[in-house]
Amino acid sequence: MMRPAYAQPLFTLTTGPVDVYPAVSRALAMPIWYDYDPAFQACFERVSLKAAQALASETPPLILQGEPVLALEAAAASLIGAQDVVLNLVSGVYGAGFADWARRYTSQVEELRVAFNQVIDPLELDRWLTQHPDVTVVAVCHHDTPSGTLNPLDEIGRVVKQHGKLLLVDAVSSFGGTAVTAASCQADVFVTGPNKCLGCPPGLSLVAVSEAGWQKISSNPAAPRASVLSLLDWRYAWQADQPFPYTPSIAEINALEAALDIYLQEGAEQVWARHALTAQAFRAGIQAMGLSLWAESESIASPTATAVRVPSGVNEEQWRLRARESYGVMFSAGRGETLGKVLRVGHMGPTAQPMFAIIALTALAGALNQLREEQIDIAAGIAAAMQVIG
Amino acid sequence: MMRPAYAQPLFTLTTGPVDVYPAVSRALAMPIWYDYDPAFQACFERVSLKAAQALASETPPLILQGEPVLALEAAAASLIGAQDVVLNLVSGVYGAGFADWARRYTSQVEELRVAFNQVIDPLELDRWLTQHPDVTVVAVCHHDTPSGTLNPLDEIGRVVKQHGKLLLVDAVSSFGGTAVTAASCQADVFVTGPNKCLGCPPGLSLVAVSEAGWQKISSNPAAPRASVLSLLDWRYAWQADQPFPYTPSIAEINALEAALDIYLQEGAEQVWARHALTAQAFRAGIQAMGLSLWAESESIASPTATAVRVPSGVNEEQWRLRARESYGVMFSAGRGETLGKVLRVGHMGPTAQPMFAIIALTALAGALNQLREEQIDIAAGIAAAMQVIG
Amino acid sequence: MMRPAYAQPLFTLTTGPVDVYPAVSRALAMPIWYDYDPAFQACFERVSLKAAQALASETPPLILQGEPVLALEAAAASLIGAQDVVLNLVSGVYGAGFADWARRYTSQVEELRVAFNQVIDPLELDRWLTQHPDVTVVAVCHHDTPSGTLNPLDEIGRVVKQHGKLLLVDAVSSFGGTAVTAASCQADVFVTGPNKCLGCPPGLSLVAVSEAGWQKISSNPAAPRASVLSLLDWRYAWQADQPFPYTPSIAEINALEAALDIYLQEGAEQVWARHALTAQAFRAGIQAMGLSLWAESESIASPTATAVRVPSGVNEEQWRLRARESYGVMFSAGRGETLGKVLRVGHMGPTAQPMFAIIALTALAGALNQLREEQIDIAAGIAAAMQVIG
Amino acid sequence: MMRPAYAQPLFTLTTGPVDVYPAVSRALAMPIWYDYDPAFQACFERVSLKAAQALASETPPLILQGEPVLALEAAAASLIGAQDVVLNLVSGVYGAGFADWARRYTSQVEELRVAFNQVIDPLELDRWLTQHPDVTVVAVCHHDTPSGTLNPLDEIGRVVKQHGKLLLVDAVSSFGGTAVTAASCQADVFVTGPNKCLGCPPGLSLVAVSEAGWQKISSNPAAPRASVLSLLDWRYAWQADQPFPYTPSIAEINALEAALDIYLQEGAEQVWARHALTAQAFRAGIQAMGLSLWAESESIASPTATAVRVPSGVNEEQWRLRARESYGVMFSAGRGETLGKVLRVGHMGPTAQPMFAIIALTALAGALNQLREEQIDIAAGIAAAMQVIG
Repeated sequence: MMRPAYAQPLFTLTTGPVDVYPAVSRALAMPIWYDYDPAFQACFERVSLKAAQALASETPPLILQGEPVLALEAAAASLIGAQDVVLNLVSGVYGAGFADWARRYTSQVEELRVAFNQVIDPLELDRWLTQHPDVTVVAVCHHDTPSGTLNPLDEIGRVVKQHGKLLLVDAVSSFGGTAVTAASCQADVFVTGPNKCLGCPPGLSLVAVSEAGWQKISSNPAAPRASVLSLLDWRYAWQADQPFPYTPSIAEINALEAALDIYLQEGAEQVWARHALTAQAFRAGIQAMGLSLWAESESIASPTATAVRVPSGVNEEQWRLRARESYGVMFSAGRGETLGKVLRVGHMGPTAQPMFAIIALTALAGALNQLREEQIDIAAGIAAAMQVIG
Repeated sequence: MMRPAYAQPLFTLTTGPVDVYPAVSRALAMPIWYDYDPAFQACFERVSLKAAQALASETPPLILQGEPVLALEAAAASLIGAQDVVLNLVSGVYGAGFADWARRYTSQVEELRVAFNQVIDPLELDRWLTQHPDVTVVAVCHHDTPSGTLNPLDEIGRVVKQHGKLLLVDAVSSFGGTAVTAASCQADVFVTGPNKCLGCPPGLSLVAVSEAGWQKISSNPAAPRASVLSLLDWRYAWQADQPFPYTPSIAEINALEAALDIYLQEGAEQVWARHALTAQAFRAGIQAMGLSLWAESESIASPTATAVRVPSGVNEEQWRLRARESYGVMFSAGRGETLGKVLRVGHMGPTAQPMFAIIALTALAGALNQLREEQIDIAAGIAAAMQVIG
Repeated sequence: MMRPAYAQPLFTLTTGPVDVYPAVSRALAMPIWYDYDPAFQACFERVSLKAAQALASETPPLILQGEPVLALEAAAASLIGAQDVVLNLVSGVYGAGFADWARRYTSQVEELRVAFNQVIDPLELDRWLTQHPDVTVVAVCHHDTPSGTLNPLDEIGRVVKQHGKLLLVDAVSSFGGTAVTAASCQADVFVTGPNKCLGCPPGLSLVAVSEAGWQKISSNPAAPRASVLSLLDWRYAWQADQPFPYTPSIAEINALEAALDIYLQEGAEQVWARHALTAQAFRAGIQAMGLSLWAESESIASPTATAVRVPSGVNEEQWRLRARESYGVMFSAGRGETLGKVLRVGHMGPTAQPMFAIIALTALAGALNQLREEQIDIAAGIAAAMQVIG
Repeated sequence: MMRPAYAQPLFTLTTGPVDVYPAVSRALAMPIWYDYDPAFQACFERVSLKAAQALASETPPLILQGEPVLALEAAAASLIGAQDVVLNLVSGVYGAGFADWARRYTSQVEELRVAFNQVIDPLELDRWLTQHPDVTVVAVCHHDTPSGTLNPLDEIGRVVKQHGKLLLVDAVSSFGGTAVTAASCQADVFVTGPNKCLGCPPGLSLVAVSEAGWQKISSNPAAPRASVLSLLDWRYAWQADQPFPYTPSIAEINALEAALDIYLQEGAEQVWARHALTAQAFRAGIQAMGLSLWAESESIASPTATAVRVPSGVNEEQWRLRARESYGVMFSAGRGETLGKVLRVGHMGPTAQPMFAIIALTALAGALNQLREEQIDIAAGIAAAMQVIG
């Protein structure tokens, strides 16, 4: 039977950029204002305060112009000085990568590392910090997207605070999709972005800094100023009567407001619940079809993305592109250590709806069956997913 | 497990209005021009000629302001005079309904009728016309949407032309989704609309009139003039230098151009193929789950919409609203005789993609299983659909 | 000096279709819903009630699918029966044109007519009605757009009601731009459209019917049913649980809601004031440049459109197209008796802002100066307009 | 007479962000793709090549995520090493500001400076370079926006190349509005952005690097890597089969493609001509009203923005906000040395149309007349502008 070839994907079920909510799409098309138009200045303050509410942050989060990679580099540059001893918690590719930035600013970077399909053990962290009282900053990636695993962030935060250290959190691909805020994990620098679970296009990042965090950054002589890597430049820019260090992305700010409105109106708990349900249904389906998760146990699997182990003998790229070509569904590849070993499916923002678990299972299994003799049982997968969805 | 309740549908899989292509959505947001702006006049001519190409019509189709119900009433008013003898072919609710308009303009309206889950037999029509040589106009609905059945239109056209009669065709919900054009069926008046398989919003209709059709209408003293029911008023309005009888819907014309561009660029045969494949997959799934089609045989089922018989003991409205509420998928009810007896699923325009068959099967079966003890086998349905899709 | 040639107009300052508000444009791009989606049914009721508030109508106005020409024809067809005696008040081309529809439904159509640059005198109407007690329906066009003149509608309404007649009002191009509502003029049928002063695209009309109006229509045996010309079909369709006679224009309904929100939030009086100020500034400018109004006196000139008399020796079409070509500004021509004699400038919706008076004066005078030896004093025009604007 | 107060501006006539072309606005609303979707990878390559055509660059320009302030910092960081001797040409606030970045990377930064209402003299530069053969890099801002003055860039480029130096150009607010390309000025690093004369929203920058430029950057051991300040990271990213260093701004890339299509289809020379005509008309108007340019002579005034000297006794902020409040027109303030001394009007992208000169003159003069006893002659300004426009 003839199969269509899709010039454009029908469904973008990746780990980001994700498709955006329709209202976000329309917000992008709003007239572009001058950044010092009083109406835009008021808008920027309003959006900053809505972000503060969503992130439960001590001070309004900075809205930086650039996807969160910028924010993470800027956070390292701003927070970490030559005297700091950084403990970097590593449970995946993104967590490991943060060390490169940290080492630019201090020679003392330590690492607590687990296999990339496991997560950090807070007890182990506690022991480690007890043995290394000189540590000043602990860095952790909440959801290491290349692995689809979620560190026990709130517990980690509790341990870090018990030891009186500063905590730098990368919650880029978890915030908005699961119960995590700057407050809940006691982060001093909490980095996230609207282009994952908030359902915005890429182009911005959000950085919430605690009072203690600002104190540390302010007293760091090496913290950048007059630079796109500066957090300090933006500290008070959220106030309508303060200048912008440079021109904000007007269209993306409008989009962010639309996304925050959706998030706050639907209610965080309701949003988290549909992320969880979608991921759970998807995982049930995957396993019922005889495929397996990358995560060592389902209990550490992220509700916002699932990394599916590539069966032996299967070429991941062929698999992924076949799903795109035959079903119009776009998935993500792995990264670094997981590249070629996993195919990743996002459950984020507008796609965090159970029906997208069905779509993902169908496309992923259908493509696999096209590629090899051995056939997996799509029907069993759908049945298992529907069992979860109800 | 918690189920979300959808304020907005995720998927509109109805028999129309359907969701539109993204490019159509953006075209609606174009600046609104004055209708006598030379650039709009040129645009209107260009769109009319693109429509002529898509409809393969002898003269550029009229683009009327109103969904096809307007066009059908206008066609009856324009074509049918008091001297005419109309044979109305009836295989469903919409076909039957046309008689009401026809009777307004002539007292002589005959009917050739079959059960509403069957289609017209061209041989029977041939016999009928042989016995009734006084007939002047034959009217037929190609796809009687409330039944999801497709009359053998090209054969009907051939018979009508062999008898030298005028042919009035309602191809509203079939054009653009299957191999039918004004030329292929030899229609004298061919009515369709862009809000079904072309993937436009409702608000316009297209009426292609043959040379013979225009001759008949021109000589009909009762054909409306200076009225929204007039076809004559619009006959030459497609030409950039001719006046509009009234202001066209600028936004919808822009949308229509975007939709025609998609249709012509993808290629009619490719578009028809994906409608056919989607419907076939859906029907396979339905039957594998133990549900049945309204259509007496699958061979007469439409590729653009499927009417699924409501199992006894099930309330159609409950079923439909449950799919909306639990899965965010909107389906259509039946109409007239089929109301309450069928639930209808559209395969039109942007939703004529096999993955939407999977979505429809999942939502429809999932909702049914929520409503009754007896459980149908969703997995079997998906498996059968995937067998078709490949 | 090189002059640009504009493929697209920069400014559409016509008497409609007018450019739309940005929020209206975005509303057109919203996802298209099924008309029987519960969310759309609720939306339709909500929009109908907002329209009722804006029109101050006794019953929620009908939202018909078609620009107001449809609504006027439908109003004539529905309200006027063979026994009726209609008095048609004529002060311009549109008022005169209504008689054609009226005569289709009764042979007794009388006319009270003034020159097309004057308006109806309520005292004269009073005398006329006293002398013709058999009249049952009085029809009047509030703003006869081809003349840019405004009839004293509230006084006319008072006289008509004193004589106990039904009143049918065409307020298509005045409603939303000046102090007129169904209540203020005591109309029994009040026809308008969102594509003038509300700043929507063309494609819909609004018809507010009084209780007395519905009584008359209900008892009119000739009132259309099962037709796009029927008002009765739509009477209760505004209620979320009532069926639609045919598929409404989803995108245009969304646009209408956005436009009504703007109107109601800005406040009718504020909206009217900016229409008035813009028109006044424009008229001051025109006259200061030595051009003259079509209207016999400025006191009857409309705040929503100005008809400027074409100076002798000037070809109106050349003038208008030159403004389009050299300045990217699109104006309207006259109609019928005023065709070639006036160039018309709209002050409607988003263009009812004083700066658009300046733009219009500049383009209109600049184009005229390009076409003839004699030069008008643009600067004097701008100065006079600025005197008004302040 | 009542004056409206504008919640939203009607016209944004600033020096950027500027309002965008309607087609750019719609492009922002396109579906958001995954960055490694093959269709987006192809899109990114296509846009890069269109940008190469527009910029006439030796190698495809980098499209960085961040407004040009990012690009300028990244250019300094990448090109300038500790051994370099930089000559910074300073004729305004932005030119002067570049030294701060340059000094971060080398201690040897020299300056050739003129008053901020003058421009660099190429002969003087020639003398300077002859006397300082150790210079390795010359940096210049083409259009120093806070002054509205345009350096003679092509002549500067010729001199720099005669001396065999590398040339770093900031053409942020001139490219796309006047005859300047990477080729025409022989730049080794040519920085611009789409949010000025191309009519895009802020959020991206374009950096064209010559072969010699890449050679220098590649051999600079201090050139950033794995940083948002890195140019090297992005060198080959324009190729569809190369990875992105981080996620590009999908929506802004779509917008950029729409803007480049407009620019290339209209034709660069035609676009430049309308910028020039608009600015010339505006300057004529300003001077006829007795106001004066900041630029020492009109011959050095930029065609893309005009800095108007604030008359003594007038508060610039009051003036600017009054224009916003009374006429809905938003202008820019000065910056640094010119802050409070000038009010700036952009002629960029969609607003580089002569009619916007009229609008700007009207709003600016009208606001000024509201603020003081002394009245300037708006009419004389309009007349002078119209003399230019024709």
